[in-house]
Amino acid sequence: MRIGLTRAGVGEVESDERFIELAAEGGFKAVDVDAKGLVERLGAEGAVRKLESHGVTVGSIGLPVEWRAGEEEFRAGLTDLTEAAAAARALGCTRCCTYILPSTDWKPAPFMAAATRRLRICAGILGAYGLSLGLEFVGPHHLRTAWKYPFIWTMDETLDWIEAIGEPNVGLLLDSYHWYTNGHTVADIERLRPHQIVHVHLNDAPNVPAESALDNDRLHPGEGVIDLAGFVHGLHRIGYDGIVAQEVLTPSAPEETPERLVRRSKAGFDRVFAAAGIRLAGG
Amino acid sequence: MRIGLTRAGVGEVESDERFIELAAEGGFKAVDVDAKGLVERLGAEGAVRKLESHGVTVGSIGLPVEWRAGEEEFRAGLTDLTEAAAAARALGCTRCCTYILPSTDWKPAPFMAAATRRLRICAGILGAYGLSLGLEFVGPHHLRTAWKYPFIWTMDETLDWIEAIGEPNVGLLLDSYHWYTNGHTVADIERLRPHQIVHVHLNDAPNVPAESALDNDRLHPGEGVIDLAGFVHGLHRIGYDGIVAQEVLTPSAPEETPERLVRRSKAGFDRVFAAAGIRLAGG
Amino acid sequence: MRIGLTRAGVGEVESDERFIELAAEGGFKAVDVDAKGLVERLGAEGAVRKLESHGVTVGSIGLPVEWRAGEEEFRAGLTDLTEAAAAARALGCTRCCTYILPSTDWKPAPFMAAATRRLRICAGILGAYGLSLGLEFVGPHHLRTAWKYPFIWTMDETLDWIEAIGEPNVGLLLDSYHWYTNGHTVADIERLRPHQIVHVHLNDAPNVPAESALDNDRLHPGEGVIDLAGFVHGLHRIGYDGIVAQEVLTPSAPEETPERLVRRSKAGFDRVFAAAGIRLAGG
Amino acid sequence: MRIGLTRAGVGEVESDERFIELAAEGGFKAVDVDAKGLVERLGAEGAVRKLESHGVTVGSIGLPVEWRAGEEEFRAGLTDLTEAAAAARALGCTRCCTYILPSTDWKPAPFMAAATRRLRICAGILGAYGLSLGLEFVGPHHLRTAWKYPFIWTMDETLDWIEAIGEPNVGLLLDSYHWYTNGHTVADIERLRPHQIVHVHLNDAPNVPAESALDNDRLHPGEGVIDLAGFVHGLHRIGYDGIVAQEVLTPSAPEETPERLVRRSKAGFDRVFAAAGIRLAGG
Repeated sequence: MRIGLTRAGVGEVESDERFIELAAEGGFKAVDVDAKGLVERLGAEGAVRKLESHGVTVGSIGLPVEWRAGEEEFRAGLTDLTEAAAAARALGCTRCCTYILPSTDWKPAPFMAAATRRLRICAGILGAYGLSLGLEFVGPHHLRTAWKYPFIWTMDETLDWIEAIGEPNVGLLLDSYHWYTNGHTVADIERLRPHQIVHVHLNDAPNVPAESALDNDRLHPGEGVIDLAGFVHGLHRIGYDGIVAQEVLTPSAPEETPERLVRRSKAGFDRVFAAAGIRLAGG
Repeated sequence: MRIGLTRAGVGEVESDERFIELAAEGGFKAVDVDAKGLVERLGAEGAVRKLESHGVTVGSIGLPVEWRAGEEEFRAGLTDLTEAAAAARALGCTRCCTYILPSTDWKPAPFMAAATRRLRICAGILGAYGLSLGLEFVGPHHLRTAWKYPFIWTMDETLDWIEAIGEPNVGLLLDSYHWYTNGHTVADIERLRPHQIVHVHLNDAPNVPAESALDNDRLHPGEGVIDLAGFVHGLHRIGYDGIVAQEVLTPSAPEETPERLVRRSKAGFDRVFAAAGIRLAGG
Repeated sequence: MRIGLTRAGVGEVESDERFIELAAEGGFKAVDVDAKGLVERLGAEGAVRKLESHGVTVGSIGLPVEWRAGEEEFRAGLTDLTEAAAAARALGCTRCCTYILPSTDWKPAPFMAAATRRLRICAGILGAYGLSLGLEFVGPHHLRTAWKYPFIWTMDETLDWIEAIGEPNVGLLLDSYHWYTNGHTVADIERLRPHQIVHVHLNDAPNVPAESALDNDRLHPGEGVIDLAGFVHGLHRIGYDGIVAQEVLTPSAPEETPERLVRRSKAGFDRVFAAAGIRLAGG
Repeated sequence: MRIGLTRAGVGEVESDERFIELAAEGGFKAVDVDAKGLVERLGAEGAVRKLESHGVTVGSIGLPVEWRAGEEEFRAGLTDLTEAAAAARALGCTRCCTYILPSTDWKPAPFMAAATRRLRICAGILGAYGLSLGLEFVGPHHLRTAWKYPFIWTMDETLDWIEAIGEPNVGLLLDSYHWYTNGHTVADIERLRPHQIVHVHLNDAPNVPAESALDNDRLHPGEGVIDLAGFVHGLHRIGYDGIVAQEVLTPSAPEETPERLVRRSKAGFDRVFAAAGIRLAGG
């Protein structure tokens, strides 16, 4: 496993280029960035050099296709997807992730059919570029009723959906906050095969009942109540060897500087991995 | 187009063998029967001879897999499915149909994912034997609330689901009662391509508001209020060249003899097709 | 059925815009053009107006992806494919075609596996835009040994490949020259279902043995020895209602003006369809 | 990793029941048996008890479908496949394997298309029962010309074919003899992800040039020249945690008793795993 960062939790960083530097300074090995933008600005070779010189890889890109709305909007994102996937490939990134909102204003059964079809097309395109698609189930209970009808939110519902999509390169984006708010256990992680997990997000939760935890009110790893040691130890036990990237959504921008936030994040990761008894390779 | 019968609407017939004879006597060209049972009793050659000597083909078999319940039950039907498909093939039948209940006690989004996966497996198996899978959307409004959550019930929702299932041999079972109770139009039929329709059921509705029509309270073709001439003319216009099989569900067994019911059915078909200006080949 | 033109057989035409005008003047209803280029030059609305004002539709676009070479080249065409498909959709075109060379320098079994995967991805992308993918089997015998190993060239081999690709929107591009040089019959056409034919090319062959006919030495319809009346009559019988587009490959550019060539083409089509006893709708 | 046996290499054993006992006595943890036969004879519960009481699991079943011949033969095996898969599931077995002959009398490209389609159907059926399908590439050079045309034989060709088949539950059956005769390296193993390997066969080769090694003339592990320590160490490094089952094909039945052969096999495994520095769990 290698530790990484997303933009969420490190404050206002002026560019992905600066973000790469900060991550490297902080001892992180991966960043989730907009690969296409980076390649557009630096060129493929320049972007590769930037990453390599900092000893950082691109953990995952986001799926730039709007698959949760109408067919027109879905189609409109496909050209972008090919370009984002090509850029990701140029940078050696093999992961693309998207989140599943646990409720929807669309009638759920027809929406599930449409979403299955759309994500299958996305997975096929991503597969052409050697990328996997990670689907993130979202646990906070308030989002289950934020829209009219329940959709899906547990890990098993997501695994079953992945089977229905039917493409070999689709798996989970496993986020500790969603694992926690779903009431999932370490045993639930331990029955996974490592290839079922495309990407991992790490964060923590405030000391409130799990059912009340808000999606955008997270804490940095090690600063809250989630059993993150159990979480990462479970990943370690099953042989997960991908990225564990921080993602701390907060209601407002943090006050500290990015430099401080990166140090605070690293300290949190160190505490969590030490508590899990895991020694990370590569320092 | 060739006209056919299902057991629903011809009363109590003691066997599929007798049913074949009755259909032939009545001028029908196809029967929906249990191909596997027929082959078990008569042998493949015997069953073929029975059909050929009566100038009757097998229109469609039913899908013998319980895909609407749990995974265990689904699996348990797969051996049966291979045997039913083999028997259908031996009799020259190329269609297998199943109905979609418009509501379900299962949470609809996870159920849609599971059903998509299960029907894809069924379609793959059927395809190996040269069969198509027809999905019948079910229109009567009372069934939309017979179970806890709405599932799907319109033609377009079903067409979209067929795309999500993603197998080339899946299409519609288009039933006039469900077309009528959905408020679908002749224009809706005319925008279909013929290969999108695997099979057709014909029946009529009593003179009550369409939203009140009960699923099991149908009339014989030509005896009710459905614009069946428009329905079959639409099929004719798009070049549909499959079977149109009668299916009249009633709350209790009809009193008339099968012989009389078959004659009554044929008279109804003749009226409908004449009103549609369609002359059926083969007398 | 509606008759159409491709650029092959009408000489040197300076632009697709002029080509549309010529086709309309000649009484043709469809043109195979580069939809993306047309939309880039005229805008989507301008291109639609150009077509509509001439009573001409876009019959098919070509697949802009190089699927016959290496993986890198294949990937490089996917962005283009999304843009070409979007342009085709904007112009109301629903077909995209590609040809299958009957031999290859690649080892045939691994190449078939790669090509199956690549065309499945292409079909998935095209399907998102409502397009079908037509695969053209290529019959001239000399091409069977133009490259090292035989690949596939008959209609049935292509139909089986379409099943292996497994996407519902893939069918044949049926070209009379390839039907003829394969020794296929009218009965072979008549056992097809119309939806299995995405697009049709019409042309004729010189009076040489079919096995010697060269791929790029074709004649205008009605000027050679192919039983084109039987060909189009077979299409008509099965209910094919798509486009029949002329495609006359010649070793060097024809000398006549495009205007004369279009008139000659139309005369050929008229002779063929008259001989087939088919009256085309829309004059 | 757990070590297992197939019938090939332990001489004449009168039944799978005796085979299970012998394997357990020898310290092996898994057997490749005919699950369906075992369940037919002992009942599902009886078979489970037999295995559990001996501390042995079923490693893999063989694919009982003839996919290398005509369509009729393929279809004829599908009922059997559902029953074999059900039996395997009842015994907790999750693997089903088949071998790929490196040459074929069928034209290779059309055969690849047909085989792709057939194996996709098989994989779909197996997936319904929770089984994976392992495809075994076959390396010995003499088999590349045993039939008319080359098919496929390398690990990469097989991986690409697995992508073309397109089902998520298909992977490799990696056999050391085929890895060796293909000239594959430990680095080739180390670039695999563990889930890409469904099952492993272990055996050794005589001291002849690899290109001359005969498919049915293998040695017991540790008795020949294959770098089996490198092979299993590579598997260990990538986190492969499945079965490593012995498969020693010989031209004639071995003379030793099954008991002696099992002890000899175990001694061979011990030597190989010790040389690889791997300590197997569970004694």
